[in-house]
Amino acid sequence: MSHGKQFTLYSHDRGPNGWKVAFALEELGLTYETIYLNFQEGEHKKPEFTKFNPNGRIPALIDHKNNDFVIWESNAILLYLVDKYDTEKRITVPDGDEKFQLLQWLFFQASGQGPYFGQAAWFALFHPERIESATDRYKKEIIRVLGVLETVLSKQEWLVGGKLTIADLSFITWNNFAFNVILQGYESFNLQKDFPSVAAWHNKLLATPSVKKTLDVREALISKK
Amino acid sequence: MSHGKQFTLYSHDRGPNGWKVAFALEELGLTYETIYLNFQEGEHKKPEFTKFNPNGRIPALIDHKNNDFVIWESNAILLYLVDKYDTEKRITVPDGDEKFQLLQWLFFQASGQGPYFGQAAWFALFHPERIESATDRYKKEIIRVLGVLETVLSKQEWLVGGKLTIADLSFITWNNFAFNVILQGYESFNLQKDFPSVAAWHNKLLATPSVKKTLDVREALISKK
Repeated sequence: MSHGKQFTLYSHDRGPNGWKVAFALEELGLTYETIYLNFQEGEHKKPEFTKFNPNGRIPALIDHKNNDFVIWESNAILLYLVDKYDTEKRITVPDGDEKFQLLQWLFFQASGQGPYFGQAAWFALFHPERIESATDRYKKEIIRVLGVLETVLSKQEWLVGGKLTIADLSFITWNNFAFNVILQGYESFNLQKDFPSVAAWHNKLLATPSVKKTLDVREALISKK
Repeated sequence: MSHGKQFTLYSHDRGPNGWKVAFALEELGLTYETIYLNFQEGEHKKPEFTKFNPNGRIPALIDHKNNDFVIWESNAILLYLVDKYDTEKRITVPDGDEKFQLLQWLFFQASGQGPYFGQAAWFALFHPERIESATDRYKKEIIRVLGVLETVLSKQEWLVGGKLTIADLSFITWNNFAFNVILQGYESFNLQKDFPSVAAWHNKLLATPSVKKTLDVREALISKK
């Protein structure tokens, strides 16, 4: 790679999962060059990319200081970054039982938040026909997931380890999309009233410098279009 | 716990995710008592269970030899079991870069296979109305995921580390359900013809003694009803 930075990050300007990786890279002060794939042109399905990620999805990360090691799945990338480069455990927890709780939250994000919030977006915005019962199913599932987070965050400030970790960072982008787009105008939804601890946690995350900087880059990219 | 075994596993007779944990427990020769929750009676949403797992889903595992440590999310449980009790690395890989590939496949299972196969099942079997375009969307997504697995398994026998690991075990139950139920009669699907490497891998997994024994227990439970 000629860009001279440690990592190449394959991402997308609107897609939520690449930005999770950028949050962690910024937080750890690591250098990276981002390549934003053009989904309209199917760049994520072309051999130049699927040779890195056979799943044809973003993100994928290449570590040029580790023999161009390639890793995909955003939460696996987050774990790679902290296990290898977060030697001071700034955004992770020490090995031991808390580490498994960190994994537990990352899997809950990957299997419970991401896919269901994503299906809500699909049926609200992209599905060829309007299907009220499908849209409703997934909006209700978002509310349920927020309820799980509220139960936990009403008793503790962060998901695990008593501090901000990659577990918290992993939830930001889909929550943002749910609050600002999918659930806008949904009558059964009142973030401040029904999920005050989630709201406070989310706002604290948005105010974190690494997150703010990264989301500003995203905003600038999107507004240029 | 009065059962005298090391673990209590909260599971469900038909649900796919509890059985993944049983495969690993059997493979590692660990002792466990399974409590099958009754979803019809809402046992997974009652405080007696949500005090262990605020997500109100199975599986959850309690380790009575580790101060009754509780962990949920099936793939986090698999990682807990191998990191703590698979000292000979029988079904995991050594720490290092392969470990992150193991995580990558576990996250692909959790975010790519489980939720989409689950949505296909939902719209085919449980949704209050028949929505052809939704059922079709998820069946096509199953085919896509099988295509990703085929690409990889046509070049190597196992997903990671050159041997059976928890990554492979994590895919069995949803694949079984897809092959035997969801995709039955789906004209665009021919397992042997289109996904020969996936078929061979899946059959090898089914013939593994720990898997066979566990699925026989499941079969016996279900046929009793």
